[in-house]
Amino acid sequence: MKLSPDWVVGFVDGEGCFHVSIQRHPSMAIGYQVLPEFVVVQHRRDIQVLYALKRFFRCGVVRPNHEDRYAYRVRRLECLERICDFFLQHPLKTRKNIEMRRFRKIVLLMKKGRHRTREGLLEIIEIAAQMNSANRPALEQIRQELLAG
Amino acid sequence: MKLSPDWVVGFVDGEGCFHVSIQRHPSMAIGYQVLPEFVVVQHRRDIQVLYALKRFFRCGVVRPNHEDRYAYRVRRLECLERICDFFLQHPLKTRKNIEMRRFRKIVLLMKKGRHRTREGLLEIIEIAAQMNSANRPALEQIRQELLAG
Repeated sequence: MKLSPDWVVGFVDGEGCFHVSIQRHPSMAIGYQVLPEFVVVQHRRDIQVLYALKRFFRCGVVRPNHEDRYAYRVRRLECLERICDFFLQHPLKTRKNIEMRRFRKIVLLMKKGRHRTREGLLEIIEIAAQMNSANRPALEQIRQELLAG
Repeated sequence: MKLSPDWVVGFVDGEGCFHVSIQRHPSMAIGYQVLPEFVVVQHRRDIQVLYALKRFFRCGVVRPNHEDRYAYRVRRLECLERICDFFLQHPLKTRKNIEMRRFRKIVLLMKKGRHRTREGLLEIIEIAAQMNSANRPALEQIRQELLAG
């Protein structure tokens, strides 16, 4: 299955998710880990579409998700940067375009290692909290911990 | 917002639904009504994408759906036929392609008025029962009623 850029944009406008979670991680110096990921979930009957996306972006993995669903998932920073660059050149038409731009800001901050500093992490939390998929209470909790620490 | 055919295919692969319901309708001679529809639902923040689809297909309506969601909905047979023709020329990449082809068969049978005959209705029920979105128990009930009638 060969995908065109416009098809990928339309499909990701429908099914794609740019998600950033921040978790406590005691073994890291700053005490928190930032986990950005790009995910597309499908029923297993359409798993071939997920593999086609993996070939299209030349990165990521296809793994079982909940029940009879599978997920195409990208977590490596270089890959996420490449995917964001694609969507800069081929803009998403839904509000997911704004999500992608916020997501990309976080990816670029992480590439500069800013997530390993208190100020950078606070900056990342501020951007992440504006995203649709944000768990705002959890982010606010971490923000308070960082400000108190 | 201008949509390209490939974007529309990708977006409908993700978010589109080809649905056929069959309902009791005492005022119709055969006693049942066949209701095929093509639907795309979005959060209201992306209502402009639904209007762009309406312009793209030059038919259908955008209306509130549940809670903060809106639906682009097409029910007129000529419009449904036009939409199916588009997806014949620009094939969907997910299993929705098979859904569309079953849906199209029903639309073409209805254009010939076959849904107003007992045999045609049984044929439509048989196709509709193979669709993912089918309410199979309800269809089986109607089939039994038709066979007994």
